Amino acid sequence: MATYTLIAEPLTRDGFAPFGDVIEAAGARHFSINAGAMERFHDLARVDVSGAEGRAAISIARCTEPTVPPVRVSLIERHPLGSQAFMPLSDAPFLIVVAPPGEAIAPSELKAFVSNGAQGINYHRGVWHVPLMAMQTGQEFIVVDRTGPDANCDERELGATDQILVKLCKGPDLN
Amino acid sequence: MATYTLIAEPLTRDGFAPFGDVIEAAGARHFSINAGAMERFHDLARVDVSGAEGRAAISIARCTEPTVPPVRVSLIERHPLGSQAFMPLSDAPFLIVVAPPGEAIAPSELKAFVSNGAQGINYHRGVWHVPLMAMQTGQEFIVVDRTGPDANCDERELGATDQILVKLCKGPDLN
Repeated sequence: MATYTLIAEPLTRDGFAPFGDVIEAAGARHFSINAGAMERFHDLARVDVSGAEGRAAISIARCTEPTVPPVRVSLIERHPLGSQAFMPLSDAPFLIVVAPPGEAIAPSELKAFVSNGAQGINYHRGVWHVPLMAMQTGQEFIVVDRTGPDANCDERELGATDQILVKLCKGPDLN
Repeated sequence: MATYTLIAEPLTRDGFAPFGDVIEAAGARHFSINAGAMERFHDLARVDVSGAEGRAAISIARCTEPTVPPVRVSLIERHPLGSQAFMPLSDAPFLIVVAPPGEAIAPSELKAFVSNGAQGINYHRGVWHVPLMAMQTGQEFIVVDRTGPDANCDERELGATDQILVKLCKGPDLN
């Protein structure tokens, strides 16, 4: 069994571009609205829904079992019919692990990121991702994704032949 | 000129139901996801987009000129092609003024609400609303609304013959 260790890198628009959008005001196109009362940082994420009777919905996700890195990940999922956005409501970092769309998932293609707690993300349709890893109980996120009658989640086991570890910085491996 | 004074009432799902959705975990349907790691408060707001080439987008709005109540409102708008959601990222209250869909806007039909700072709102398509009134500079909101080539904002002047005042509680009128 081979071990792959991913060091979570700070989330940036450029680094995350192959997988989706980073939702943050910094560095975004903006303009004045409401007669000058508000500044709008516009279209930071494209909400993408397809399939019969699919529509976008807004939900809240709250962490009940926090992830403490270093962590071993063993499951990855994708949503073939739509994008999925998570925007933190709590100012606390969270971990992201992604792989490009496609049928085969090579451990060498996995990438890990850490949000600074003000940054949200929007997975593009079909991008593989490990279920969101919040690091504090009660941490909340706004979720914008597709709801509808069609099946919209494919899951794959990782780690049958390989062990995938995610760490926040270089250091001793998980025991 | 008649004066109408609106007292902003605390935002509740029932009170706001004729105008849209309240986005908050409290009192919402929820279930466990991510193998028990997260609780999902599901489908708190329906994102509604129509018109050729329309799609939902996620943006951020930041307050640059705060509203200090009591405030006189003179403009109201509606989006005929889609819903519009605002979710506070800053834990600070904000003011909401709405009127039911329709061509005529009677001052007596206007209603004012105040969010507790954890509650977001989603205006349903065609609901008249005064542009969002944040009360602190730098206050931020996630916006989920429609983007596309078609015109999607109707504006009406209020107060040509009437004066509309919004207050947080009963007390002396605006001078």
